[in-house]
This record gives sequence, structure tokens and C-alpha cells, in this order.
Amino acid sequence: MILYYAPHTCSLASHIALEHAGARYELRRIDFGANEQRSPEFLKVNPKARVPALVTERGILTETPAMLVFIAQSFPAARLAPIEDPFALAEVQAFNSYLCSTVHIAHAHRMRGYRWADDPAALEAMKKKVPQSVGECFGLIEREMLRGPWVMGDAYTVCDMYLFTLAQWLEADGVDLARLPRVAEHRRRMSENPVVVRAIAAELAA
Amino acid sequence: MILYYAPHTCSLASHIALEHAGARYELRRIDFGANEQRSPEFLKVNPKARVPALVTERGILTETPAMLVFIAQSFPAARLAPIEDPFALAEVQAFNSYLCSTVHIAHAHRMRGYRWADDPAALEAMKKKVPQSVGECFGLIEREMLRGPWVMGDAYTVCDMYLFTLAQWLEADGVDLARLPRVAEHRRRMSENPVVVRAIAAELAA
Repeated sequence: MILYYAPHTCSLASHIALEHAGARYELRRIDFGANEQRSPEFLKVNPKARVPALVTERGILTETPAMLVFIAQSFPAARLAPIEDPFALAEVQAFNSYLCSTVHIAHAHRMRGYRWADDPAALEAMKKKVPQSVGECFGLIEREMLRGPWVMGDAYTVCDMYLFTLAQWLEADGVDLARLPRVAEHRRRMSENPVVVRAIAAELAA
Repeated sequence: MILYYAPHTCSLASHIALEHAGARYELRRIDFGANEQRSPEFLKVNPKARVPALVTERGILTETPAMLVFIAQSFPAARLAPIEDPFALAEVQAFNSYLCSTVHIAHAHRMRGYRWADDPAALEAMKKKVPQSVGECFGLIEREMLRGPWVMGDAYTVCDMYLFTLAQWLEADGVDLARLPRVAEHRRRMSENPVVVRAIAAELAA
């Protein structure tokens, strides 16, 4: 398999999952600085001009929640998600869906407001609200969603990899981590996992 | 099971799936006009203050992509998703994830821009771009994603129910349907399905 990624983006979640799964894969870095995600070559891989994208022998997959469950199902021995239990899997999926459609979106208004407005003052207004909107999302995770010690309780799952990935951005988003002690402690534990350390190092080295 | 819904929202996708599955469920309407989604009672059901929410005997599920796969897995005889094939299921999930995290979000900037900015001029700027941003999303679906006759090709899946649901909003979003003949034809076929007709009628009657 080939994982198309860019450092400091949500592709890290799938990367950590592949590494945990013991999958054989190759990393291909997309240079956002050079706008490579909009190159004709990459648009053939992913016409949405985004990372991550995963080239498999059956075809190309995109979208983090889809890729995470696919990796979990393809490497069942790694036990990355409760794939044998539809309800428990749906809880994993609901968490991942909240991250992609609400948390990541709140964050995206800091740097990618141009997706939703053209007026420079509007982009500034969006940027200004990010500490509050991202802070509220993570407040809900802190209070209602992160069961502890892992997102789903005792079981370490793809949700932890995805939450960790988005929690990387909290400081830059202007969110006060002191109000999120459980999220901060989860992030610290994740950051010490040798698999996570290896994935991040590989992204920065490539 | 109990499905919490509001008319004209994305909860219709899960409703159609439950109806196709032959599930036994009860509908509970949440009155957005009266801000019922933020009532203390409903926040106990879904602290995110959104629909849909599905009460099951195991607990409460939220987030359309998670609910759709859960319904498909819980009622395998209805064959609503390729649940036996991880790659094909990941394709279904990638499509649903695009709808929730990109298409629905583009649309949400018309009515719910207050989630991402406070300045009234910014809300106006967001509203102004909706025909373009939603139009581009559906243009990609038209050209690259909708295989025909159904989203995933010959198999009718939860993707069709979800696409149909979001395609209800195209006119109000200011998108020119003449540029989307395949999406428009898909919507027409869906709207004639007796199961879909029944679900919509039940939502408006309740």
C-alpha cells in the first residue's frame, strides 16, 4: 500500500494505524507548500486535492474515518477497533465522525476559511472564533466522550490515534490546554507510544 | 429503537435506512423552531444538540455515517451496504464521510455560519459563497463519484439515501441543477421509491 500524507495534517491518524497494524506500506509526502495536492498527478490519486489517500491493491481510499476502519478490518490481529460488534464499532465511528465533521472543521476555519468565504474580513472573523469553537469541541470530548484511559474506555482503538492527531493543533488554535486535563494527559500518553514516535519521525524525515 | 429527527435535516438518511431495513422504531420529532435540540431533555440524549440520534437497547448512537453502517450491519438481510467486504465498505464509508465533512459543511454555511464566526458581515459572506462551494462538491459527485445507476454502481446502498437527503437542499443553496443531470436523475429516482415517499410523509405528518 501507499499512504499519501503531509506532515501536521490528519493523515497522521491513518499513518499511526498502519504502523500499529504492522502493515507493509510506503509513505509518499505531498508538499502543501508547493501546492502539490492540486497537481495533475495528485488529482488523479485524489480529485478532492486532500490527504490522506491510501493506494491499495483494490483501489484508492480517502477520508480518515473510512481508512481507519478499513485498516482495522484488514489487520484484525492488531485489534484496532471492535470490528466484531456492530454497536461498539458504531460508537467508534460516531466518535471519528464527530472529529472529521465538527472538530476538524472548526479548526479548518483558522487556515482554510477561503473554502467558505471570499471576503478577507470574513476570513479574519472566522480565524478569531477558532479558539472558542475548537475549545468547545474539545470541552465536549473532555467532559462527555473520552471515557478513559482511552477514548472507548479500556480498549485502545483508532479513535485514540485520530484524537491525538487533532489534539496536536490545540496550541496553534489558541485553546487553553489547562482546561482540558484529560485530553492533555491522553495526548501525553499517546506521544510516548513508540509506534507514534516512529510514525511522526518518519513523516518529518521523509 | 427511537429515532430523533427533524424534518428537512440529514436525519432523513437514517430514517430511510431504518425503513428499508424493516426495523421496528419510533420517530420522535425535535422542534428546531422552538430550539428543542438545546433543551435539557434532549441534551441528555445528544449533548451535541443535533439530530439524528438513535436510541438502541445498547445505548444512543449519533452521527449519520456511523448510524447508516450500524443499521446496515444490524439488518444484513436488507443488504444496505457491502458489510462482508472491507474494501467495498470503505468505499461506502469514504463517500458518506465526504458528504458529512465536506458537502453538508459547505451547505451549513448558509444557515449556521454562527458556528464559525460572530460578525454579521462574515455570516453574509459565507452565505454568498454557498452556491459555489456546494455546487463544486456536487460537481465532483456528478463527475467522479456517482457511478450509476446508484452511487456505488449496481448496488443500492446507504450512500444513495444519504446523497438523496443532501440533494434535497440544492435549490435552496442556489445550485443550478441543470449542471448536475446525473445527480438530478438520481434524486428523481430516489424520490419515486415508495420507501422514501413513506419516510418523508411520516416526517411531515408527525
